[in-house]
Amino acid sequence: MVNAIITPKGQLDLLSKSEINLLQSSSDGSYANLFRNCALAVLSTGVDSDDGHALLAAHEDFSIDVLSSARGVALRLENAPENAFVDGNMITGIRNHLFAVLRDIVYLQEQYPYWEQQEESITDLVFKTLRNARALQPRKRPNLVVCWGGHSIAEHEYDYSKEVGYRLGLRGLDICTGCGIGAMKGPMKGATIGHAKQVINNTRFIGITEPGIIASEAPNAIVNELIIMPDIEKRLEAFVRLGHAIIVFPGGAGTAEEILYILGILLNEKNNDVAVPLIFTGPKASEAYFEQLDSFIGLTLGEQAQALYTIIIEDGIEVAQSVCQSMKKVYKNRRKLDDAFFYNWSLTIDEDFQHSFAPTHENMANLNLSRNQDKAHFAANLRRAFSGIVAGNIKPDGIAAIKQHGPYQLKGDADVMAALDSLLSAFVEQNRMKLSGDYTPCYELIEKE
Amino acid sequence: MVNAIITPKGQLDLLSKSEINLLQSSSDGSYANLFRNCALAVLSTGVDSDDGHALLAAHEDFSIDVLSSARGVALRLENAPENAFVDGNMITGIRNHLFAVLRDIVYLQEQYPYWEQQEESITDLVFKTLRNARALQPRKRPNLVVCWGGHSIAEHEYDYSKEVGYRLGLRGLDICTGCGIGAMKGPMKGATIGHAKQVINNTRFIGITEPGIIASEAPNAIVNELIIMPDIEKRLEAFVRLGHAIIVFPGGAGTAEEILYILGILLNEKNNDVAVPLIFTGPKASEAYFEQLDSFIGLTLGEQAQALYTIIIEDGIEVAQSVCQSMKKVYKNRRKLDDAFFYNWSLTIDEDFQHSFAPTHENMANLNLSRNQDKAHFAANLRRAFSGIVAGNIKPDGIAAIKQHGPYQLKGDADVMAALDSLLSAFVEQNRMKLSGDYTPCYELIEKE
Amino acid sequence: MVNAIITPKGQLDLLSKSEINLLQSSSDGSYANLFRNCALAVLSTGVDSDDGHALLAAHEDFSIDVLSSARGVALRLENAPENAFVDGNMITGIRNHLFAVLRDIVYLQEQYPYWEQQEESITDLVFKTLRNARALQPRKRPNLVVCWGGHSIAEHEYDYSKEVGYRLGLRGLDICTGCGIGAMKGPMKGATIGHAKQVINNTRFIGITEPGIIASEAPNAIVNELIIMPDIEKRLEAFVRLGHAIIVFPGGAGTAEEILYILGILLNEKNNDVAVPLIFTGPKASEAYFEQLDSFIGLTLGEQAQALYTIIIEDGIEVAQSVCQSMKKVYKNRRKLDDAFFYNWSLTIDEDFQHSFAPTHENMANLNLSRNQDKAHFAANLRRAFSGIVAGNIKPDGIAAIKQHGPYQLKGDADVMAALDSLLSAFVEQNRMKLSGDYTPCYELIEKE
Amino acid sequence: MVNAIITPKGQLDLLSKSEINLLQSSSDGSYANLFRNCALAVLSTGVDSDDGHALLAAHEDFSIDVLSSARGVALRLENAPENAFVDGNMITGIRNHLFAVLRDIVYLQEQYPYWEQQEESITDLVFKTLRNARALQPRKRPNLVVCWGGHSIAEHEYDYSKEVGYRLGLRGLDICTGCGIGAMKGPMKGATIGHAKQVINNTRFIGITEPGIIASEAPNAIVNELIIMPDIEKRLEAFVRLGHAIIVFPGGAGTAEEILYILGILLNEKNNDVAVPLIFTGPKASEAYFEQLDSFIGLTLGEQAQALYTIIIEDGIEVAQSVCQSMKKVYKNRRKLDDAFFYNWSLTIDEDFQHSFAPTHENMANLNLSRNQDKAHFAANLRRAFSGIVAGNIKPDGIAAIKQHGPYQLKGDADVMAALDSLLSAFVEQNRMKLSGDYTPCYELIEKE
Repeated sequence: MVNAIITPKGQLDLLSKSEINLLQSSSDGSYANLFRNCALAVLSTGVDSDDGHALLAAHEDFSIDVLSSARGVALRLENAPENAFVDGNMITGIRNHLFAVLRDIVYLQEQYPYWEQQEESITDLVFKTLRNARALQPRKRPNLVVCWGGHSIAEHEYDYSKEVGYRLGLRGLDICTGCGIGAMKGPMKGATIGHAKQVINNTRFIGITEPGIIASEAPNAIVNELIIMPDIEKRLEAFVRLGHAIIVFPGGAGTAEEILYILGILLNEKNNDVAVPLIFTGPKASEAYFEQLDSFIGLTLGEQAQALYTIIIEDGIEVAQSVCQSMKKVYKNRRKLDDAFFYNWSLTIDEDFQHSFAPTHENMANLNLSRNQDKAHFAANLRRAFSGIVAGNIKPDGIAAIKQHGPYQLKGDADVMAALDSLLSAFVEQNRMKLSGDYTPCYELIEKE
Repeated sequence: MVNAIITPKGQLDLLSKSEINLLQSSSDGSYANLFRNCALAVLSTGVDSDDGHALLAAHEDFSIDVLSSARGVALRLENAPENAFVDGNMITGIRNHLFAVLRDIVYLQEQYPYWEQQEESITDLVFKTLRNARALQPRKRPNLVVCWGGHSIAEHEYDYSKEVGYRLGLRGLDICTGCGIGAMKGPMKGATIGHAKQVINNTRFIGITEPGIIASEAPNAIVNELIIMPDIEKRLEAFVRLGHAIIVFPGGAGTAEEILYILGILLNEKNNDVAVPLIFTGPKASEAYFEQLDSFIGLTLGEQAQALYTIIIEDGIEVAQSVCQSMKKVYKNRRKLDDAFFYNWSLTIDEDFQHSFAPTHENMANLNLSRNQDKAHFAANLRRAFSGIVAGNIKPDGIAAIKQHGPYQLKGDADVMAALDSLLSAFVEQNRMKLSGDYTPCYELIEKE
Repeated sequence: MVNAIITPKGQLDLLSKSEINLLQSSSDGSYANLFRNCALAVLSTGVDSDDGHALLAAHEDFSIDVLSSARGVALRLENAPENAFVDGNMITGIRNHLFAVLRDIVYLQEQYPYWEQQEESITDLVFKTLRNARALQPRKRPNLVVCWGGHSIAEHEYDYSKEVGYRLGLRGLDICTGCGIGAMKGPMKGATIGHAKQVINNTRFIGITEPGIIASEAPNAIVNELIIMPDIEKRLEAFVRLGHAIIVFPGGAGTAEEILYILGILLNEKNNDVAVPLIFTGPKASEAYFEQLDSFIGLTLGEQAQALYTIIIEDGIEVAQSVCQSMKKVYKNRRKLDDAFFYNWSLTIDEDFQHSFAPTHENMANLNLSRNQDKAHFAANLRRAFSGIVAGNIKPDGIAAIKQHGPYQLKGDADVMAALDSLLSAFVEQNRMKLSGDYTPCYELIEKE
Repeated sequence: MVNAIITPKGQLDLLSKSEINLLQSSSDGSYANLFRNCALAVLSTGVDSDDGHALLAAHEDFSIDVLSSARGVALRLENAPENAFVDGNMITGIRNHLFAVLRDIVYLQEQYPYWEQQEESITDLVFKTLRNARALQPRKRPNLVVCWGGHSIAEHEYDYSKEVGYRLGLRGLDICTGCGIGAMKGPMKGATIGHAKQVINNTRFIGITEPGIIASEAPNAIVNELIIMPDIEKRLEAFVRLGHAIIVFPGGAGTAEEILYILGILLNEKNNDVAVPLIFTGPKASEAYFEQLDSFIGLTLGEQAQALYTIIIEDGIEVAQSVCQSMKKVYKNRRKLDDAFFYNWSLTIDEDFQHSFAPTHENMANLNLSRNQDKAHFAANLRRAFSGIVAGNIKPDGIAAIKQHGPYQLKGDADVMAALDSLLSAFVEQNRMKLSGDYTPCYELIEKE
């Protein structure tokens, strides 16, 4: 364990007295605690576990305080995890993550309580959060690829995600992921080599996370722009408004949540004219995985949803070339819609997908998972179901709730439940739910009469 | 008159949809009007007039609109003053001023309505406004000289202010002024040559203004960081917290306001340990001016106030060397107080000096200008009196009020009124009140019984 | 007088042991002496004299040595002129000039003895000297204006040159001059303000000089790229190959030399297709000056030469707009000729104009100044005649030769001599020959029978 | 095969007409051929072969020409290897290597024929070549680690070299190698990850090669500063004067040459006070390799030579920490000797080690490999012997000579020959001589009577 005083680089060190006060560990505010837990997650990068609950428990004596000094803000750490340091000095990338957490928690505390008074939309708020994080870069042509996929994937899948990343990097594309390991790390690692060969220095490796998941999926060390959104729904909106194309690698419940989110939005007919390239890809050995996923989508959301994506098996060069092509389409589409390259304002996202869903046992049980609703609503509810399963699997609060109340109960049409069951069973079987240990499902599927 | 579409450089072009909407000329909001008037002032730089009222009247058909485009924000101007353009293209410095106005009006609109809910102090708010304007630069040693003085000064006084600026520039010092002409421009112009000889590229020429005064004192073209604070009191606070030393050149009522402001603050015993170097300087021919000012201060605020400044006559090198020396003192003082170099948190400023004073006829008449109060309060009230006179002289609203209701009535002790009378008469005689035309006083001095 | 150790910024401080040894003051090499004298000239910037002979005499105890240190090269100065320092530190611009001198003398010593062995042309050599000085910037569109004109000009002419510079600067043009005062400084000073308003930071103010003239025309402090060419002919070639347009302000013998040089080259029919915009300009009061010059050119070189330039009187905006137009022509011309923007390879310069002319009394007397030769040769010889007069007026060696042997004797056709006489007399009368003091002509004009 | 026109970035594109002419493929000069062959090698990076002879033979139709254009120099390639391109565009890193080759061949052609006339030493010449390549960086503290070792090494050795590189990179150290694969690539690849975690952008990965070896050891794609020295002796001198510490990984004949070179120099008593940290390191499985090497050094050069290095087995962190420590020693040593950080002038290198050794059969046979000479000479001759073996193994000319004349004959003391035999046999056995295929020794060892 290490004690240290850490100072930042750049503009992050400019906090007002009142901002500093609210984050003091001595304050009883929830923001101080939120900051502490996110900071701990960031310092734990490289740890081989996705059990956020266990992580927090293992570091009860860790503390972090914001100090004001003659040259700006500094952080005082006590009992910090040792692997964040080299010869006593904190690794710069981790230090930057730490100050990104500080930046975003301060913003959260200052802006989020007032947005409704200001008559702003959630979309405005997401925009302003990203702007505050300097993630919006005007005057740059579309080149940001969002890569989704599981943190717990097989080695050949990881290797394939690196290969795809390498081919993307050789073509100068930037990468944005959910910032953990597995399919969130592989494309970045591959792109690093591609960028090095192309002598690209101003590479963007954006990691977008939220306080609930960060402890389970600590940002990998390659992420050079870390953004903490306030919750999973804002995080998903940040992905789709910031990115210019989306690639989905194999994954588990979280990946399913992401897929249902984007399909639900694209099924909204107001989005018919908005270009959002979407590719599912994996190695040959994962072909069956995508077939099963595709048929689940067909069964629940129909052919119209299936038409929204392309599946490419084991061909990194084709994926990369296809993304390059689609970037040109996105460029033209944004010009035509007179929309910003750096933020997809044109995309309509229903409030259904924007408001925070708390996966309590009651809320989960009340989800309508039957086909007696329009497709977009159905996608929204399915999204919530998977979101709850992720919480029950790896988020600290979710794990605690399952311990106390037993598995969630999900109800819906018989055939939907059957398809869901076989999909979830496959996730379990293929170890996609958790990194290690035996997996006990945190859900029960119940046919609705 | 020119019509044009102007795009910015840098991060200024990132506005949310709701931010853009509030500034549309079609909106009925006061912010849109505020933005238009400040923009017009900025475009009128170089105009030889300080009559803000006349300026606005002369450009009734000017309009400005915020547009959203694929590459960010743009501004559409109609009937803009021609001298802001070269061969049809807007001069870059003016373009930057325009977007600085946009930035600060947006911030004003978003932050100022909520600060009391957020339990922030005015000092926090000033800090955050400056931070938003990127005016706070951590990791830089103290080197910012605030230069105060009149916009309407004699040519030899202007030349002397250039000479002092040249000597400051040769020593690598940055300059901050109220951003108009006269003593606000001279030091910057001189420093430009000094910096050029020293091959200093990242020079800071900060101009701090506020919506009430900008139309009368348009930012000179050398200003490369323009900041619009919401009112005169916040502007004055920005000067003293941002700067590291203050030089006062000859001037009129506005300069007197500035002097009384800083003396009133430094007379607060809580500030005894805070280093704020303060020099009054002018050419030989202005020696009598400073003698009169000094004796007025002696009469009203006493010897203690006189001890707070040094007067240097016609010696630019001594001024510059003295400022350099005091920068070292400020450096040590901030280190000792563990205070930021970039913002003087240590200075205590009473709310008396922070809240906006509206110079209505009633408020002016109610000012207590007698010695039956402590020195700091007395300074605060004198400051308000001069502030009102500035408004009556050159601010659009003030001029209109005087036209309607006649001169302000100021009341106080007989000897104070006598001293004030002779000081103001000297200002009138020396043409320090207005740039041109006969001057009719906007005030009457009345002895209190 | 100041003693100091000066260290450079940038790559200039990389000298090999053998390079350092050759420049030691203890070495008996002529390069060490050349370096010392040029360094002294650079340190004397701002001195109000053009008498290089007197300057060297006044600083006999000045010495400079090249030192090698752990961090690179340093210079040890003894008895250096005080005005190069502020509070004991050398002004950065002057320090840069000093290391530019070092760079160019080292290059001179290393390259010039071998170029003939290497089968290179003088044009190659000039190219390589400029490349070594980092003066060649690929990928930049034509925007460099060469400004010629006298160092000893009237105040209204100087003010006009500033006005023209201001208009050029507002249009983003860079300036190149002979690096002294008068018409060599005015355009740079004016452009500084124009560039500041346009927020242009990477401004180029190139000063090109040579060891013979530098002591008389020390680089002004605005020059931020100083280049020392080996002699006047290489310096003139550097001007015309580096620049994209030429403006000639009023001046004396040196300016006449420059005009004859460029006209002589442009009269070469091989250059018919090469665009070299050439403008003569001055204030209204100097109109007669240009009329006389124009008629002298008409008499000696004929109408064809007169067609090569445009005369614009008292209209800075027209000059600047005309230069902007011609930059577009030059751009197209270089593209058409497949020639570099940064070096005008296409221009043919006869060896007549390239080889060094030593203005001994014998060489001067042998110049053919009659019309019995082709125009280009005639221009070349006239150029040499004026070059000799400059030497006799202000160069240390020339002044010494005149003192010893009396005035130069120039011979030619009667009418040419008469025209020359009236031109030179006008120069004398208008104080264009020397900065101060009575002027005794260093030449006699003799009609050839 | 690809045809393309390639333009550079930066200052590399400034060539004079005469420089361009000398490199035209139509010219019969040897420089044009040298340039072509080096360019081909650079384009072949990633090819799995070290047979330079075969490479050249396989691309007989490849041609490269230097073009002059309006924006600078360009290269026209015909029949270039395809793997240097992505979607038809040359990979930027390879493009940079190509222009580095151009830069160094131009310099070679211009400077090397004249250095003796200029009374310069070879050390001056090496300095100037590195300066021209911008490889000398003043004002930077010692942090460059030279990594030597074989191109043909086992996978676990390669992985270990990556691990060491990672630990060096985490500590901010830069890497310099011989620029091929194997132990020349591993440390760079590892350091890339370390630098990424520390957010270090201005990383230096220097590769130093020479025309004879480049075809066999094409620069790996991570090299971002490629330098072509004129021959192996200048290349070795560049390593030891540029680097601040040396790490030797396992390797074959080339590595042995490098070890003997540095030991031979450090055995010179003039170098007793010059700090040159030297570490031999490898994984556990290579421990025997270093034991054999160490005992060969003991037998031939004695204990004094053995004291000059430290052997560290399988401990990347210890290696990195030890290098960090030694950087501080080097810093102090250079300060004490008043020597440059960027070039080790203090090191004395006898001409024995500086002049080019041509490994003809005659020269090889005449080498004195007996102990009847001082240790430094003995090291010099042993160095030459290994240098010849490298040539016979992989250099195009060497392979051709062996084909024609059979193996080299090396003669020396019986026990030296025996030790040499067992060392070389081990190299053969462990596949350290060549990348692939059966190895036929290019030498015969003969006991001298």
